[in-house]
Amino acid sequence: MALPGSRPVRAARGTELTARSWQTEAPLRMFHNNLDPEVAERPDDLVVYGGTGRAARSWEAFDAITAELTGLADDETLLVQSGKPVGVLRTNPWAPRVLLANSNLVGDWANWPEFRRLEAEGLTMYGQMTAGSWIYIGTQGILQGTFETFAAVAAKRFGGTLAGTLTLTGGCGGMGGAQPLAVTLNGGVCLIVDVDETRLRRRAGKRYLDRVETDLDAALAAVLTAKEERRALSVGVVGNAAEVFPELLRRGVAIDIVTDQTSAHDPLSYLPVGIGVEEWHDCAAADAEEFTRRARESMAAHVAAMVGFQDAGAEVFDYGNSIRDEARQGGFERAFAFPGFVPAYIRPLFCEGLGPFRWVALSGDPKDIEVTDRAMLELFPENEHLRRWITAAQEHVEFEGLPARICWLGYGDRAKAGVRFNELVASGEISAPIVIGRDHLDSGSVASPYRETEAMIDGSDAIADWPLLNALTAASSGATWVSIHHGGGVGIGRSIHAGQVGVADGTALAAEKLQRLLTNDPALGVMRHVDAGYARAAEVAAERGVRVPIAA
Amino acid sequence: MALPGSRPVRAARGTELTARSWQTEAPLRMFHNNLDPEVAERPDDLVVYGGTGRAARSWEAFDAITAELTGLADDETLLVQSGKPVGVLRTNPWAPRVLLANSNLVGDWANWPEFRRLEAEGLTMYGQMTAGSWIYIGTQGILQGTFETFAAVAAKRFGGTLAGTLTLTGGCGGMGGAQPLAVTLNGGVCLIVDVDETRLRRRAGKRYLDRVETDLDAALAAVLTAKEERRALSVGVVGNAAEVFPELLRRGVAIDIVTDQTSAHDPLSYLPVGIGVEEWHDCAAADAEEFTRRARESMAAHVAAMVGFQDAGAEVFDYGNSIRDEARQGGFERAFAFPGFVPAYIRPLFCEGLGPFRWVALSGDPKDIEVTDRAMLELFPENEHLRRWITAAQEHVEFEGLPARICWLGYGDRAKAGVRFNELVASGEISAPIVIGRDHLDSGSVASPYRETEAMIDGSDAIADWPLLNALTAASSGATWVSIHHGGGVGIGRSIHAGQVGVADGTALAAEKLQRLLTNDPALGVMRHVDAGYARAAEVAAERGVRVPIAA
Ligand SMILES: NC(=O)c1ccc[n+]([C@@H]2O[C@H](COP(=O)([O-])OP(=O)(O)OC[C@H]3O[C@@H](n4cnc5c(N)ncnc54)[C@H](O)[C@@H]3O)[C@@H](O)[C@H]2O)c1
Ligand SMILES: NC(=O)c1ccc[n+]([C@@H]2O[C@H](COP(=O)([O-])OP(=O)(O)OC[C@H]3O[C@@H](n4cnc5c(N)ncnc54)[C@H](O)[C@@H]3O)[C@@H](O)[C@H]2O)c1
Repeated sequence: MALPGSRPVRAARGTELTARSWQTEAPLRMFHNNLDPEVAERPDDLVVYGGTGRAARSWEAFDAITAELTGLADDETLLVQSGKPVGVLRTNPWAPRVLLANSNLVGDWANWPEFRRLEAEGLTMYGQMTAGSWIYIGTQGILQGTFETFAAVAAKRFGGTLAGTLTLTGGCGGMGGAQPLAVTLNGGVCLIVDVDETRLRRRAGKRYLDRVETDLDAALAAVLTAKEERRALSVGVVGNAAEVFPELLRRGVAIDIVTDQTSAHDPLSYLPVGIGVEEWHDCAAADAEEFTRRARESMAAHVAAMVGFQDAGAEVFDYGNSIRDEARQGGFERAFAFPGFVPAYIRPLFCEGLGPFRWVALSGDPKDIEVTDRAMLELFPENEHLRRWITAAQEHVEFEGLPARICWLGYGDRAKAGVRFNELVASGEISAPIVIGRDHLDSGSVASPYRETEAMIDGSDAIADWPLLNALTAASSGATWVSIHHGGGVGIGRSIHAGQVGVADGTALAAEKLQRLLTNDPALGVMRHVDAGYARAAEVAAERGVRVPIAA
Repeated sequence: MALPGSRPVRAARGTELTARSWQTEAPLRMFHNNLDPEVAERPDDLVVYGGTGRAARSWEAFDAITAELTGLADDETLLVQSGKPVGVLRTNPWAPRVLLANSNLVGDWANWPEFRRLEAEGLTMYGQMTAGSWIYIGTQGILQGTFETFAAVAAKRFGGTLAGTLTLTGGCGGMGGAQPLAVTLNGGVCLIVDVDETRLRRRAGKRYLDRVETDLDAALAAVLTAKEERRALSVGVVGNAAEVFPELLRRGVAIDIVTDQTSAHDPLSYLPVGIGVEEWHDCAAADAEEFTRRARESMAAHVAAMVGFQDAGAEVFDYGNSIRDEARQGGFERAFAFPGFVPAYIRPLFCEGLGPFRWVALSGDPKDIEVTDRAMLELFPENEHLRRWITAAQEHVEFEGLPARICWLGYGDRAKAGVRFNELVASGEISAPIVIGRDHLDSGSVASPYRETEAMIDGSDAIADWPLLNALTAASSGATWVSIHHGGGVGIGRSIHAGQVGVADGTALAAEKLQRLLTNDPALGVMRHVDAGYARAAEVAAERGVRVPIAA
């Protein structure tokens, strides 16, 4: 059932303004772009992605936001409270044009029942990370994030490439389906197990997966040959991970990396051994409790095999699906023997202020992104990793909504890229302004003890001062819109995070703003990790001149 | 036991800079002033007020903050994370010079045990409201807040004055002792009951209380005559409120207003009927459980009398000491028959953006405050209420630390006052810049379901987007320092709130900043109450031009 007032939305294209300047045209187009049917999961309900992550609270709020942005002056600021516009203020030209706070609740009330009560009363909405902050860019983010994780695995353990390595994983669904391509883009070989052949076939159709096999021996022969030849290859094999993983362990197959993205976080979405794909939903519906018990039992076998591979020397990690805790409940005691992916691979990147930098061409013209892609490769010629990703993205990514690009950049490089984009807009090489933002999942912008700040070395996982300082910093450094959200990714009560977006409109003021914004924003990431005592962050701060008053 | 590195601190005085400009001298002096022994409760421990509300995390952090503020340029910003300086950034001249986030925790971890664990590890500190945000000004705030509450009672029910009314209350302690003076300043008669004669005598000595009586009949005769003659008078009577209140009800004394500030929130601090003051602490220590039972039984009798007065037509309210809930636990079912003071009196003020405006003379010269006092009376000649307060404050308030003044001002008037102070600094009539801030307890800056946002008409008590938007707005409107805190007033897990301070340094830029900051900050209060559906707020918005896109 669509919300009242629903209609198809698509951002304006081209070089003509529909608002009073590009500083307001930018949030207006990005707000609309988030609801483009190519981008949003359920646009009629204003849902962009991630469960119920919305761009506006109601269609009435949608209309009012659109009207206000259309008329807003360059020294005015629109306030948005959980998807509803609540005020317009006179501020100053350096201030953000839009300030957003979404889904925030006082601690003792920060739980799903209270949130849902307030949502049902029309008093709040769930903003996720980039839905309510108008900088979601579709599925490119998933591919790039997975690519980046496997690149980090390569950097940590295999000399910077996965060439000559074999990765075993499970789950080829909406998110997990990015794994085989992410592995091959890093030069490696991937064997991915899914119970549902149709999920494997869908990915093979889109070139995300090279081959599908129903026979394990055939699949194994293919991946082992490719590994031997140091040739990138991905093979999907139909089977239950809780049977295939232990079988491969028993056979002593030389597997280098093991992870999993079956949807283990919800036991009814994980198929237990002994139940066929056709019977799955009926069985789960008939007796959810018994199904859960059997799913956890299977997950225990699945995770036991993963720990077995780890004992045999493989690199093993949890990829954010909670399978460790489910296996523990299924009776396997050593389930937490391997780490989550953030402490294992992403934190070292965070120490350098590295994180998901993204930009969008407001013109709607894919040629503008081509120009930025080229500019990136020219700016960072020594960055082989970046070249591999940009080349792969050009080949594999179909734009959804306004053309966009994402890549991970660290402290220093983000500002360089932003200033360069602004020059290209000024010179006319890019036809209209570029919007530059990022995910809330970044090095200094989120407190989330079950994910981004899991297992900080100083135990500061739950300290939430950092995302708030991050948002205040963005508002003080020339961002065009700034957001503070609660509960993105891991749910209500479990995270606080901030976002910022700047606009390269080709003006001198934009150049100054981008220089400071894109320096200061990742600086918070470096500072947060210096403060926690990470040696690499202290090195980065010292080398690149990040000013930290007290050493950890 | 003092923290390592402790020493006496006092803000610099006079017109010579110790930092690079007044924009950084101001936070530096105010930071030091918060720790002045005249101002802070336990300066050696960096504790300013309110339990363990601190100005800095450690003396090492104190030194580092002092050093950074001394050297900071006017386009740089210092970040402070729970009392520790964690970074310095290049921002812009409109941006705050200091951004502070104190005591913030992710929701599921927002409880005292986790907070205390992190505090013991040296990873956080408790910022209270104005301790960690460097704008506490001593006990003047308590007197003014109580004055304001009684003024609001007068406005709501007695035509704007308490002349000819009799107020009955209990508890003449640290905070409650401001009640008799607050009532007489509003022209009324106050009878205050305390079991401890020494508490009454101490206040009488300071002219906060006109007379002390040990005999109820004598006390009654005095207050009834004064009421008859419409003469302001306060009388303290020694007795147990749980006996005196019911006795006065039985006698049918014509009491107009009833409240209470015995320390009922902690049953061991409330003396039950039948126990003498001398035996109090021994009894409580010997059997805390039995003492609690008896205290609650007495509170039930005490609150039953309050409800009795209400039934007889009196104005009755809870003054933030939780006595209603204790009486309910003591077996009295109608304990919540009367409201808390915020929904009853303060919310209508919040609807006008009224709240605790305060300012400090950085020179240290009391003459500068005299000049501002005069300016206020000239600016708002029609505001009789303000005149009464300023006159009273001049007579009764002794400055603690740097000379300061507080008064409640609403939307529109705050900006007028700020701009006027800046002119007086520019013209030299005031000898050095004036700092202008406020408490976090304000109309649009706090989410606190047990106090400031109790019983919002739309049920939005726990929505915490507003204080975050408030802080982002301040950072976007020219504030010199901005803070976001968690847990002030009502404790960890129960509140999120924001603060801002501006500096009138006599420059044209400061005038522009103050105009916007002091317009936008209370605008958030009006907007928050328009959004919740308060008719008065909608009127204020319409009359004074506060721009709210969607009516509630
Ligand atoms: N790393 C992160 O930050 C992150 C982000 C988003 C989601 N996730 C988690 O990743 C998981 C996968 O997400 P998705 O969107 O791909 O889910 P999905 O439901 O689209 O796909 C899950 C796949 O697992 C398969 N499967 C189920 N049981 C199986 C079994 N026993 N053996 C083999 N295959 C089995 C299903 O057939 C399906 O194809 C979820 O748990 C999700 O919460 C992690
Ligand atoms: N309104 C607010 O926002 C607000 C702010 C701060 C504190 N408070 C609350 O106000 C209360 C008082 O604070 P305080 O700082 O004055 O406390 P305090 O402990 O200094 O004073 C309490 C007084 O109550 C007297 N008392 C105790 N039992 C009595 C009885 N049975 N009959 C008569 N007198 C009795 C004591 O002798 C003492 O003088 C506390 O509960 C506090 O939490 C409210």
